[in-house]
Amino acid sequence: MARTAGVSRAAVSKVIRDAYGVSPEMRSRVEAAIERLGYRPSVAARAIRGPSFTIGFELHEIENPALNRILSGAVAEIAPTDYQLIVAPAVAGGEGHRAIDALVDLRADGLVVVAPHAASDWLEKLASRMPVVLLSRHDRSENYDIVTGDDVAGARLAMHHLISLGHHRIAHLTRGEETTTREGTPPAVRLEVYLDEMTQRGLARHIKVARAATPGDARRATSDLLASANPPSAIFAMNDDLAMEALHVAQERGLSASDLSIVGYDNVRLAGHRAISLTTIDQSGDDLGRWAVRLLLERIDGRTQVKRETTQPSLIVRNSTDHPRSEQH
Amino acid sequence: MARTAGVSRAAVSKVIRDAYGVSPEMRSRVEAAIERLGYRPSVAARAIRGPSFTIGFELHEIENPALNRILSGAVAEIAPTDYQLIVAPAVAGGEGHRAIDALVDLRADGLVVVAPHAASDWLEKLASRMPVVLLSRHDRSENYDIVTGDDVAGARLAMHHLISLGHHRIAHLTRGEETTTREGTPPAVRLEVYLDEMTQRGLARHIKVARAATPGDARRATSDLLASANPPSAIFAMNDDLAMEALHVAQERGLSASDLSIVGYDNVRLAGHRAISLTTIDQSGDDLGRWAVRLLLERIDGRTQVKRETTQPSLIVRNSTDHPRSEQH
Repeated sequence: MARTAGVSRAAVSKVIRDAYGVSPEMRSRVEAAIERLGYRPSVAARAIRGPSFTIGFELHEIENPALNRILSGAVAEIAPTDYQLIVAPAVAGGEGHRAIDALVDLRADGLVVVAPHAASDWLEKLASRMPVVLLSRHDRSENYDIVTGDDVAGARLAMHHLISLGHHRIAHLTRGEETTTREGTPPAVRLEVYLDEMTQRGLARHIKVARAATPGDARRATSDLLASANPPSAIFAMNDDLAMEALHVAQERGLSASDLSIVGYDNVRLAGHRAISLTTIDQSGDDLGRWAVRLLLERIDGRTQVKRETTQPSLIVRNSTDHPRSEQH
Repeated sequence: MARTAGVSRAAVSKVIRDAYGVSPEMRSRVEAAIERLGYRPSVAARAIRGPSFTIGFELHEIENPALNRILSGAVAEIAPTDYQLIVAPAVAGGEGHRAIDALVDLRADGLVVVAPHAASDWLEKLASRMPVVLLSRHDRSENYDIVTGDDVAGARLAMHHLISLGHHRIAHLTRGEETTTREGTPPAVRLEVYLDEMTQRGLARHIKVARAATPGDARRATSDLLASANPPSAIFAMNDDLAMEALHVAQERGLSASDLSIVGYDNVRLAGHRAISLTTIDQSGDDLGRWAVRLLLERIDGRTQVKRETTQPSLIVRNSTDHPRSEQH
C-alpha cells in the first residue's frame, strides 16, 4: 500500500496517525491510495504493517494503586489470548500524546487510553484510524469506545453515607485544578456531585474544596482544612490515595472517625488493611481493565459502532467513618 | 541488510532474537550477511530497522508497589531524553519470554528485564543481540548489565535490628519455593542471610520459614506461624507487601510490636503511613529504576563491556518493631 501511494511507510504511518510534519501533498497521495484500495483507514493501517498482536495501554500516574487494579484486570483478560499488553507510561500532567504516538509507532493493533487531558478531537482522529478505547472520561465519542465507572452514582453513595451518619460540615479533597476543569473526568464528576449534594441539602455554606497538586501535598491540604474556621467533620476524598494521606493527618492528631470521618474512592488493596480500614467506593477497577481489553479486541475484530461500558460502584463501609461527635448547623 | 541476506525482515528479526522456527540454513544466511557487513549483532539489529527510540521494560507483578518505585525512577530518568518507556507486564510466575519477545518484536532499542525466572543463557543470547539490563538478580553476566540492591547488606540490617532489640524467635516470611530456588534472586539472597544469621547466632533451633504463594496467602501463613509451637516474637518479611499482611494479622489479634515485631523490605510509600508505620529496608527503588535506564542508554550508545550497579540499603526504624515482651531461650 505504501508502494501504491508512492511514499514511504513512515509517511503513511504519519498520515494514518495524523502526526505533524506531513505535507498536504503527501497526505492527499496517501489518502488517495487508501481510497483507491477501498480500505477503511483502520484496516489500511494494519494492512500496511500486518497485525503485531499487541495492545497498547497508555496511562498516567503509574504509581497510583487504583491503576494497578485496572492493569491487573487488563492483564488477566488478555492472558488467554494471542495478544501481549504493552504499557506506555505518560509524563504526569501531560496530554499523553507522546506516549500514545510511541504506541502507534510500535505498531500496536489497538490502544487503551487513560489520558484524561487528551483533546477529544485528537482522540477522534486517532480512533478513526485505529481501534481505541478511552478509560478515563465520560465522553460522547463517535469513533472510540468508553469504559468508566459510574462516577455520579459512586460520588452520591459517598455523600449519602456521610450525610446519613449526620455530617454537615463535609469537605472535598481533590487534585489540582487541571484535573477538574475538563468536563467528564472522574475528578470533575465527583466534584460536581459533591457541590450538588451540598447545595441540595442546604449545606452550601459548609462547602470546602481542598486541592493537592500531588498526592504528597494531600497532608498539607488536610491540615489546612482542619485549621480553617468551622473545620469539616468529614472529608470526601476524590480517591483512596488522597484519603489515606488525610487519614495519616487525622491519626497523627489523635482524631477518631467521630472527629473526622474520611471516605475514599477506588477500594485499593490496602484500603482493606486493618490499620487503614478506609470506607470507600469500589468501582471494580479490575472490571474496568477487563472491559477495556474486551471492547478493544472486538474493535480489532472489526466492530466499528461505538460501545460504552459502565461499572456499577458500591459503598464499602469500614472504620474511617462514624457519626460525628457533635454537629453544629 | 535483509536484502543482502536474501531473507525477509521477519527472518532476520527471528535470527537476531534467537526465536524458534528458524531453519539452520536461514540462520547461516542471515549470520553470513551480518558477518559480511561487519556488523556487531546488536548494531545489525538496529541497522536493519532503525532506532525506535523506545526502551522496553519487562516486569512481573505489576501490582507490587515496590515495582512502582522502580518504574517511577525509570520514568523520571527517561523523561528528558528522546526515548519513551514501554512496559510489558509478564504473566505472574512465568519466565517472561513472551513479554520480552513482544518487546523485541516491537523494535525496542533495548530492554530492562525484571524476569527473575528467565534462564541466564537465554538472557545471554538475547543480550548478545541487543542492549539488556537485568534488574532482578545478582548474575555473573557476560553480555548484560546488572542493577540490584545490596540484598546481603539489607537482609543483615533487618536481622541485626531484630537481634539487637533482643529477639531470638525470628521467623522469615517469604514467597513460594520458585522464588527462592534460583540462586541470586533477592528472595533467595534474603532467605540465605536469614538462615546464616540465625545459625551464626546459635538460634538455628528457632528457624521458621513461612511461605505465601501469593501476597493474599500471607495472612494465612502468618496465622500458621503464630499457631505453631514456640511461635516467633518477630518476623523478617521478604518485602513490604508480605510484611503489611503480617501486620494486618497482628493488629487483628491485638498484638503490639513487643508481642510480634515485623520488618519489611522496600520502603514502599504506604510503609511510612502513620497507621502502618512499618520498619523496613529502603533499597532506593527509584535509584534502581534510574540506574537501569542510565546503563541501558549507555549500551544503546555503544558500550559493550558489562557494568554492575548496586544501591546501598538503609534501615528505616518505625513502630512495627520493639523489644520483645519476654524472650525464652
